[in-house]
Amino acid sequence: MALADARIGHLARLARWRDILIPADVTRCATIAAADCNLARELMLDPTTNSLCDTFMARALALSLQNVRSGRGGPFAAVIVKGSEIIAEGMNCVTATNDPTAHAEMVAIREACRKLQSFELVECEIYTSCEPCPMCMGAIYWARPARVYFANSAADAARAGFDDAFIYRELSAPHAERKIPMIQLRHDEAPAAFRAWREKSDKIRY
Amino acid sequence: MALADARIGHLARLARWRDILIPADVTRCATIAAADCNLARELMLDPTTNSLCDTFMARALALSLQNVRSGRGGPFAAVIVKGSEIIAEGMNCVTATNDPTAHAEMVAIREACRKLQSFELVECEIYTSCEPCPMCMGAIYWARPARVYFANSAADAARAGFDDAFIYRELSAPHAERKIPMIQLRHDEAPAAFRAWREKSDKIRY
Repeated sequence: MALADARIGHLARLARWRDILIPADVTRCATIAAADCNLARELMLDPTTNSLCDTFMARALALSLQNVRSGRGGPFAAVIVKGSEIIAEGMNCVTATNDPTAHAEMVAIREACRKLQSFELVECEIYTSCEPCPMCMGAIYWARPARVYFANSAADAARAGFDDAFIYRELSAPHAERKIPMIQLRHDEAPAAFRAWREKSDKIRY
Repeated sequence: MALADARIGHLARLARWRDILIPADVTRCATIAAADCNLARELMLDPTTNSLCDTFMARALALSLQNVRSGRGGPFAAVIVKGSEIIAEGMNCVTATNDPTAHAEMVAIREACRKLQSFELVECEIYTSCEPCPMCMGAIYWARPARVYFANSAADAARAGFDDAFIYRELSAPHAERKIPMIQLRHDEAPAAFRAWREKSDKIRY
């Protein structure tokens, strides 16, 4: 509990945690901090000597470990920060929800956008436990946050048995050489919707 | 209505539509067919002379045009087929739902997986009105369908003002040269979750 208290003090100093992050919920703050500190010890992190960036990344790393232990999904987690506030957290839940798109970053991006009521993450930062796969990188470019912090690399994920590096290679291969065949049909008739889009005067661009 | 009837007959021959696709709902079938035929006329498609693949792609193209006209989102739609049955349809609804991940393919993949109660699309085909962006291609590789049919190319999408080609270029650029900065933190402490994953005997791989 001493460590948890130290961490609350540390976070409060760094991020004005009590005022901004979890305004009236010191109990929850203490619980999160205590859980983080326990995990931090296992992760060999020193929760009292890190910068604000490191604190947010420590949270993502702690959640990624927690996600494996709970059996909910793969070893990945992400948090999204605006200003000094965590506005969304996500953990991989592909197998628990039968949703192949439910990677940590995707879950966090969707939740952050829901909270902000916006399809863009203006002035937000993403802290993710692992370099995003092409799906998540694509989502990040569509959501347009200010920057992305990551810990493990795509190569680390590949060594742990995940397809990230393979998918990166596939996306830069010609269609004909890809493992999932890509076949073009009806190209001549296809532009009608794009034409309608260009002509639509009240469209919302994204 | 003559065209709609002709199309129902055509689809019934090709895909045993009445038996497989919409077993007891001829009314809905007629409505869909009539709507498709109206759109097909505008798209200059001949609904009575196409193969089964073309029929599914025509449906995706019709939905993509419908999505622009309804104002719900961008000019993109996708259908997912298993056997001769459409099991899911998706239209872009990024702006309508404030969800940057709600591309047509993503919506369709999530819906198909929900219906199949699986995080993989075994023996499924995706028909999409446009070559998928990196996010959607990533999702496709995670979902592992048998093949992908597309109509417009990524270059067509870029000409219509969408970021697909830009994102493809970014993903093959070194981290330091990307428009959204990618910064690695705490790499030394990061492997704990991967280690726990490797050691977990009851994990579900995906």
